[in-house]
Amino acid sequence: MADKRIYSFGGGKAEGNAGMKALLGGKGANLAEMASIGLPVPPGFTITTETCKAYHDAGKQMPNGLMKDVRKAVAAVEKQLKRKFGDGLLFSVRSGAAASMPGMMDTVLNLGLNDETVEKLAGGDGNPRFAWDSYRRFVTMFGDVVAGIERKKFDAELDAAKHSAGVTRDSDLPAEALKTLVGVFKKVYRRETGEDFPQDPWLQLERSILAVFESWNNNRAIEYRRIHRIRGLLGTAVNVQAMVFGNLNDNSATGVAFTRDPSTGDNEFFCDVLFNAQGEDVVAGLRTPEDFNAFKKHMPKLAEELLGYRAALEKHYRDMQDMEFTIEDGTLYILQTRNGKRTARAALRIAISMVDEGLLTREEAILKIDAGSLNQLLHPTFDPKAKVQVIASGIPASPGAAKGKAVFTPEAAELLAHKGERVILVREETSPEDIKGMAAAMGILTARGGRTSHAAVVARQMGKTCVAGCSQIEIDEHAKLFKAGKHTVREGQYISLNGSSGEVMLGDVPTVPPELSGDFETIMAWSDEFRTLGVRANADTPVDANKAREFGAEGIGLCRTEHMFFDATRINRMRQMILARTLEQKQEALNWLLPMQREDFVGLFRAMNGLPVTIRLLDPPLHEFLPQDPAIQQVIADELEVPLRVVRETVEALHEVNPMLGLRGCRLGLTQPLIYDMQVQAIIEAVREAEQQGVKVAAEIMIPLVGTVDELRPLRRRIEAQLTRFNLEKRAKVKVKIGTMIEVPRAALTADKVAEEADFFSFGTNDLTQMTLGVSRDDAEKGFLIEYVVRGIFPTDPFATIDAEGVGRLVEMGIQLGRKTRKDLKVGICGEHGGDPESIEFCHKAGMDYVSCSPYRVPIARLAAAQAAIRNK
Amino acid sequence: MADKRIYSFGGGKAEGNAGMKALLGGKGANLAEMASIGLPVPPGFTITTETCKAYHDAGKQMPNGLMKDVRKAVAAVEKQLKRKFGDGLLFSVRSGAAASMPGMMDTVLNLGLNDETVEKLAGGDGNPRFAWDSYRRFVTMFGDVVAGIERKKFDAELDAAKHSAGVTRDSDLPAEALKTLVGVFKKVYRRETGEDFPQDPWLQLERSILAVFESWNNNRAIEYRRIHRIRGLLGTAVNVQAMVFGNLNDNSATGVAFTRDPSTGDNEFFCDVLFNAQGEDVVAGLRTPEDFNAFKKHMPKLAEELLGYRAALEKHYRDMQDMEFTIEDGTLYILQTRNGKRTARAALRIAISMVDEGLLTREEAILKIDAGSLNQLLHPTFDPKAKVQVIASGIPASPGAAKGKAVFTPEAAELLAHKGERVILVREETSPEDIKGMAAAMGILTARGGRTSHAAVVARQMGKTCVAGCSQIEIDEHAKLFKAGKHTVREGQYISLNGSSGEVMLGDVPTVPPELSGDFETIMAWSDEFRTLGVRANADTPVDANKAREFGAEGIGLCRTEHMFFDATRINRMRQMILARTLEQKQEALNWLLPMQREDFVGLFRAMNGLPVTIRLLDPPLHEFLPQDPAIQQVIADELEVPLRVVRETVEALHEVNPMLGLRGCRLGLTQPLIYDMQVQAIIEAVREAEQQGVKVAAEIMIPLVGTVDELRPLRRRIEAQLTRFNLEKRAKVKVKIGTMIEVPRAALTADKVAEEADFFSFGTNDLTQMTLGVSRDDAEKGFLIEYVVRGIFPTDPFATIDAEGVGRLVEMGIQLGRKTRKDLKVGICGEHGGDPESIEFCHKAGMDYVSCSPYRVPIARLAAAQAAIRNK
Repeated sequence: MADKRIYSFGGGKAEGNAGMKALLGGKGANLAEMASIGLPVPPGFTITTETCKAYHDAGKQMPNGLMKDVRKAVAAVEKQLKRKFGDGLLFSVRSGAAASMPGMMDTVLNLGLNDETVEKLAGGDGNPRFAWDSYRRFVTMFGDVVAGIERKKFDAELDAAKHSAGVTRDSDLPAEALKTLVGVFKKVYRRETGEDFPQDPWLQLERSILAVFESWNNNRAIEYRRIHRIRGLLGTAVNVQAMVFGNLNDNSATGVAFTRDPSTGDNEFFCDVLFNAQGEDVVAGLRTPEDFNAFKKHMPKLAEELLGYRAALEKHYRDMQDMEFTIEDGTLYILQTRNGKRTARAALRIAISMVDEGLLTREEAILKIDAGSLNQLLHPTFDPKAKVQVIASGIPASPGAAKGKAVFTPEAAELLAHKGERVILVREETSPEDIKGMAAAMGILTARGGRTSHAAVVARQMGKTCVAGCSQIEIDEHAKLFKAGKHTVREGQYISLNGSSGEVMLGDVPTVPPELSGDFETIMAWSDEFRTLGVRANADTPVDANKAREFGAEGIGLCRTEHMFFDATRINRMRQMILARTLEQKQEALNWLLPMQREDFVGLFRAMNGLPVTIRLLDPPLHEFLPQDPAIQQVIADELEVPLRVVRETVEALHEVNPMLGLRGCRLGLTQPLIYDMQVQAIIEAVREAEQQGVKVAAEIMIPLVGTVDELRPLRRRIEAQLTRFNLEKRAKVKVKIGTMIEVPRAALTADKVAEEADFFSFGTNDLTQMTLGVSRDDAEKGFLIEYVVRGIFPTDPFATIDAEGVGRLVEMGIQLGRKTRKDLKVGICGEHGGDPESIEFCHKAGMDYVSCSPYRVPIARLAAAQAAIRNK
Repeated sequence: MADKRIYSFGGGKAEGNAGMKALLGGKGANLAEMASIGLPVPPGFTITTETCKAYHDAGKQMPNGLMKDVRKAVAAVEKQLKRKFGDGLLFSVRSGAAASMPGMMDTVLNLGLNDETVEKLAGGDGNPRFAWDSYRRFVTMFGDVVAGIERKKFDAELDAAKHSAGVTRDSDLPAEALKTLVGVFKKVYRRETGEDFPQDPWLQLERSILAVFESWNNNRAIEYRRIHRIRGLLGTAVNVQAMVFGNLNDNSATGVAFTRDPSTGDNEFFCDVLFNAQGEDVVAGLRTPEDFNAFKKHMPKLAEELLGYRAALEKHYRDMQDMEFTIEDGTLYILQTRNGKRTARAALRIAISMVDEGLLTREEAILKIDAGSLNQLLHPTFDPKAKVQVIASGIPASPGAAKGKAVFTPEAAELLAHKGERVILVREETSPEDIKGMAAAMGILTARGGRTSHAAVVARQMGKTCVAGCSQIEIDEHAKLFKAGKHTVREGQYISLNGSSGEVMLGDVPTVPPELSGDFETIMAWSDEFRTLGVRANADTPVDANKAREFGAEGIGLCRTEHMFFDATRINRMRQMILARTLEQKQEALNWLLPMQREDFVGLFRAMNGLPVTIRLLDPPLHEFLPQDPAIQQVIADELEVPLRVVRETVEALHEVNPMLGLRGCRLGLTQPLIYDMQVQAIIEAVREAEQQGVKVAAEIMIPLVGTVDELRPLRRRIEAQLTRFNLEKRAKVKVKIGTMIEVPRAALTADKVAEEADFFSFGTNDLTQMTLGVSRDDAEKGFLIEYVVRGIFPTDPFATIDAEGVGRLVEMGIQLGRKTRKDLKVGICGEHGGDPESIEFCHKAGMDYVSCSPYRVPIARLAAAQAAIRNK
């Protein structure tokens, strides 16, 4: 740890700079930077994040001698401003970590005031109203954020004071009333804390610093870090800065500005200002701010000065800035700057404009865009202006804004959808049997399961909105309703789901459609220029495939053939096959399915004309096709004219203690070869049929769950023999590549051998993560995984972002070993990670040829791949 | 592939030698070797195993030109013996792979005879009875093993012939009767095959060679290879050798001999001889052979000659030999030699004697013993002379010979055992709730589950006999009986279990007790001298621990603390803890358990005085402590005075789709810290208590299921803090080492980091195998695993012998990475593999410090470790 705990700034110089965000936090580093480049920053100092860490490491002990150092730093400010702390010099105290993090203690202003100094302030410049107003604010903020007194206890007293003074606005309260109010506030303080409001400015300062340290580990901050995957930070810095007063008089003001429009990205100065007000008034929205035109009119010279700083900051930071400023009696101060948050649309606009303006190269511009945010552009979103009534909140599992009538069964979903209604399917959790209902619905809401549950995975795949694991709702499927707190939603009632926030809302919330602007096309074109990684899509149907091509997919990296069996008419044939007692019966059911599969594949080949299409042979365990529910078992028995006993026995025989480690994938292919035979035949015939229609076909057969080359070899031989036979019989020249998923750790460990029989590898990192970490995806979200992520045991959800150190190590080994055997081995990824920007960067660095993700994530992957290429050039 | 397909031998020279077993098979290589060193071997030739492989690879096509090569080789024999094939020269055809393998085609003798040549043979040397007897045997053998005609069809005709001739012995049938019989046999042949018995000797030879090739892949041979883990062989060789006739006249004989007693190992010639007989008569046991004394008396010079060969062969092969010989009209021929199979007792005796005799060094002697066979010495065995009635057969899951009254519940087992009865616990499958009943029983029989099922693992651990997965029995627990075919066994009826063969027998089969001879002690002492690997035991109780020390364990490598909770009185406290709704209730239950655990540990420390004791903190998921059965749930609810609803809800909440990848091990420790706190406290207090009693303690706390150092670190810190607190409070100096299981692939992949916080690693290769291969142990034996092993997709059961290529790679990585961080890191293994000789060799090569296995496998591990050290010096 560096010994230096405090970095001072002000008066045109600073000990820190913008590069020291890890140590000084974003706010502190930028204050130092601005001071260095000569912007008018009120002087102050920053206590380092390491000091915060030391505080927590020591079991919440104030580090030895810290307050001594603080006194020295304060003395330096006093010297510069020629005022004494508490006597003309007040401070603001703010938290500030390396990453922006709402939820931590925000701000204490006017620190240093007490019963004595307030009188001086009131007397000194003849503005008692200002002085008492400042004190009143200080007591409120200190009481709230340092002493933990509910804010509303002060607000109630403020309202009472306004009432008795007969005014409605805070600013209309006269000085005397404010003075009385301060007395009342101090009583509130005493009542709530059992002690007097601290009068010693140094004690006020020490306790505020402590409160900032504490707030680093409050629940909201921890939760925020978890959700936003903020990790590896030491703690928060504490910024102590001389107060300047926007509420001193009418020649004073406070404001926030974006150097460009954060919503559209247009190069227009976006400025909110409040005259004669303190910063918190802007943030709190207590008064409606005025715009830059009003500012120019009222303070033309200062407006000019501010525009100068705007240009300077953008030029210096080479990014759109979000700045805060205060004018004290005609003098302009810049209090803060940071890269401004923006919509995806604005991000694209700004990036392109800054290239046009020569501020950024295209590479730099690409890096400024948050790839994940492109999601906003690809799905309709709720109108941000709409009034909404949120009744529950779940896991945001698949983005989008969906609304429709609540239904509780897949049948009802289909029925209503057929009638042209929009429906939301509400289920405890979904299973493959719900697929048609999910397809019919606009969105899916489940009470159980997480981001990687069946509902979530399928919804993302389908591009449907999904809120999963919404434990606040209680579903009564029988009564066709669900309860959320005091609300009851019945079948047919409209609800709206926000798949990006996880919110469930009552009624039909209006949405705004997605718009893919020219900017989007430009950024995609630039991305394609820079990226070296291919981008394919996971798509099971021609509809998905076409959507994927629209978004720029360069092929299909994963077609899950099992999804083709869940069609209502087909699933019974599948069941017939599973329940068959003779090979003939089995074969009969498969013969029925063959032409269906063939047509599916022809459709895919047509949609992807010329681009590679990777078809994975049947993967899930067969028990997924049979229901557990005895009632449904009876229905199936009747429909298929099979004794119920046979259905039951089959279900029991297929039961596994750990299905994830069970009979599926190539294990099925080896022990029940007829299924793969049928699928392979369908693929071969489809290639031929499509080619005869003039379609170019690049078909790749992918064998799942391989753990040893001794599984792959016989399957490959069988496919090759089937192909040879077909080509001989039909005088055809059908060609397919044959490769494998790498998803069992052993396959990665022995990839040199596996590559002997594989034309390509596709890393199935969902399963690979499960087995490498020993964590069941199906149990993860209800289990310990969330706690692990919250506590930082896992730096992030390993099913969302690849665990580079563990799973990634296996992926790297797999690629290296595989290419040792087959130099030109084509390698991709088709797990959920293929659409995650951070994981995509990993794939790029690992030397993969392509990533494959759901159609709606293709643009994100294209951009992320470009960023990875630029960053790792 | 070598081009040479045929290797000739005879006349004092040979093209092959004993080192060419892979190519010529064991039999062929030894024939060549014996021919080279001048033993009287009838000339012949061997078709290579590669030729067999080529036959199968080509889809069962006779390799081009093979019969041409055969004709050349036959010509060489003809030249040497100056007789023509079919005309005075007959052949035997035998299979012979590199490993001994019953189940393949055995032998066709007298090949070359036909209706014409039999007359010549009958006329030539005036012995028509011999000629027709030879032809009759040839037609039988050819019909049986080449044409696939059921042997009994010939036997029935033979019986009829004897009946009508009024004789009882084959050898009493006169020539005429035999001639008639041959005619009948040929009709049988025609009836069964639809064609005439082949008359062309070359066709006979070709079809016999084909039949040998075919037999390589018949079901019995495949099954045998699977069970005996024979793998990596190309195929079988075919040995074609000139016939010599032990049945020519009274100056002829045939016999088998062991150079030493295969049962005791005593250095006594062990010889069975039949005068005027062919080899098959000995093997078939049709006539009772005479012993060496009879032989010496009858043929003193030949007996001397044979003793000379005995000495020569032992000296040449430096091992006890199993030889076959034939005397044709006063001339002695050696037809075969191979290392003789022997009992464990004999193996020890022979090894030690041969060292005494200067034939072997001690290292060589150690290598001659099959380590796994020591099992025989450690458990009582059924008297081999006893008459038994086998009613069913299951998986031999834990060796031993157990017998007792059948009982169907653990309660009944305990009850009867208390009364001093021997009982066999018969269960569908066992669960942790059955532990006490298992402990009370002599053996366990289950209808479901395999070698790694709960019953099997616990039984091996306890040293109890277990036959698992005996699907032939149908248990009716309610009626207290099981059915096996036509037999019904009721509670209280005696049954006997052979844990080495899997047989279930009716009644009280007599046993012979194990004897640990001085030879055993000698071999153990030599082993300890050579081995570098330590050997510890997996033991959960002082009884187990003492047994382990008796067998030479150098510490406890794994104490599974959960087994201590399954005691009838304790399990309810455990349940109370799990069902508790408040921390106080939880703590109360744990406080009750603490002194119990402490006393357990004190007992272990005392048993192991001074030797290391590795205690694993709680590992299994909590749901294992709660029953699924609603009736038992009700009982528990009543007993613990908890609403049934709470029990049900808890069971449901603890349910996991894939428990193997679920909330257990350190994940429990992190999310429910009170349990580990209690266990750690018990360990610390036990160390102190034992030390105060004068016991030396080397306690090691092992944390299971670690996947990242970020799990291990906080747990270690917590233990250290607890230890520091204890030492401060009690002015004690308790020390413990803290290490981890490596059983999650990620832990091995990041072992450099994990080692930062671990004093030792213990590889839990059961779980590591499950996750690395993606195979659930619980589902394995009923699932595809058996088929995989049968088909050679897995070379062996990876839960029995470590998968060196996949799992082993991770183990090696784990050790290398771990020692990179911590040079002196102590590394062991505590999975089932720790007691498997082949896996132990892997552990030695991987550089482990010790293996840990169940107490009864400790001697095996000591010997196997010595063998590994010698082989890899």
